[in-house]
Amino acid sequence: MRLRHVKMANNIIEASPYIVLDPFSYCSKWKELFGNDNPIHVEIGMGKGKFIIEKAINNPDINFIGIEKFDSVIVRALQKVNDKEIVNLKFIREDAFNVDKLFNKEVERIYLNFSDPWPKKRHEKRRLTSYSFLQKYDIIFKDKKYIHFKTDNRHLFEYSLISVTDYGYKIDSLSLDLHDDNLEDNVTTEYEEKFHKKGYPIYKMEISRN
Amino acid sequence: MRLRHVKMANNIIEASPYIVLDPFSYCSKWKELFGNDNPIHVEIGMGKGKFIIEKAINNPDINFIGIEKFDSVIVRALQKVNDKEIVNLKFIREDAFNVDKLFNKEVERIYLNFSDPWPKKRHEKRRLTSYSFLQKYDIIFKDKKYIHFKTDNRHLFEYSLISVTDYGYKIDSLSLDLHDDNLEDNVTTEYEEKFHKKGYPIYKMEISRN
Repeated sequence: MRLRHVKMANNIIEASPYIVLDPFSYCSKWKELFGNDNPIHVEIGMGKGKFIIEKAINNPDINFIGIEKFDSVIVRALQKVNDKEIVNLKFIREDAFNVDKLFNKEVERIYLNFSDPWPKKRHEKRRLTSYSFLQKYDIIFKDKKYIHFKTDNRHLFEYSLISVTDYGYKIDSLSLDLHDDNLEDNVTTEYEEKFHKKGYPIYKMEISRN
Repeated sequence: MRLRHVKMANNIIEASPYIVLDPFSYCSKWKELFGNDNPIHVEIGMGKGKFIIEKAINNPDINFIGIEKFDSVIVRALQKVNDKEIVNLKFIREDAFNVDKLFNKEVERIYLNFSDPWPKKRHEKRRLTSYSFLQKYDIIFKDKKYIHFKTDNRHLFEYSLISVTDYGYKIDSLSLDLHDDNLEDNVTTEYEEKFHKKGYPIYKMEISRN
């Protein structure tokens, strides 16, 4: 984005009721923000927000929080909800790396959708299913740990399957061609729609750990 | 096969030096049969034998045993080796179900290639990666357990990944499109060649457990 656009995006973001501007101050206090004890589900790297917005609308008894680093895509998510009042949805503008400082045993499920594959070996730690991120998730999960992971990137999926099972997660369900399985309740992301139309398989796993 | 063919196949099989006609009598004594202490690798469901024959020729310091139930395919394997003398290769005509009565803490690696997927839920126990077969393998493995598994069947691979990790196996390596990975040391089966040419992905995992 050019400077003018950056400023505009920043103004839109800071004015939105969906954005939690000082999210670290809510660590251990997210139920106060939502005003209820409903489960909290977090999408790390929500992108343009289609997935988490649909999830929030369809599941009013769950609180959804989307984390996204880039203003340019957050504003696209805000455009989708500005004319709506979705009380169980919040967005955080933050780097995924700090997720363990945003929550303290408060999260019941994490969604990872089409995360950056970081293909180079030296960037392994940045992958959201690496050992170091799985350690961070242990801090934010309330009790039993549930992760739903989707990607079109074969190598990231192979890596992730090895990484999470090695860490102790059990695979509850698995699809190596999600859209061929006709799952009725699959909520898609923008990226997923585009990739599926090109005929590429979408990989998905749901995993859990006590 | 018609009766005449069945008889012919039976005659060919019983006359072959590669066939161990009374395999159960060698349980706990396979090293005596081979006359050495070399590791024993077993392929369960070897089909027409291309894979295990190539493996045996390329690895003279490992003893290979192929198990196959059907005479019609065993004779095809024998046709490939009748003019050769491969001292580290034996075939067993037996149902995989009895594998735990064929070996007693003697096997170092199991190969499962393009196993019957048994897609119906009520046939789950017949899948070679089911809980009941993994229990049988515990009996035949010498020490650390190594399984190499290849298939073109997506649902069998999904099932197997869940089953083996749930059982406690670690995934050492994984490919969701084996032939796209240009693995130099991949020894193919007849079935694999045919399927790969049709453009279908071949799935592979190498797993282990202490």
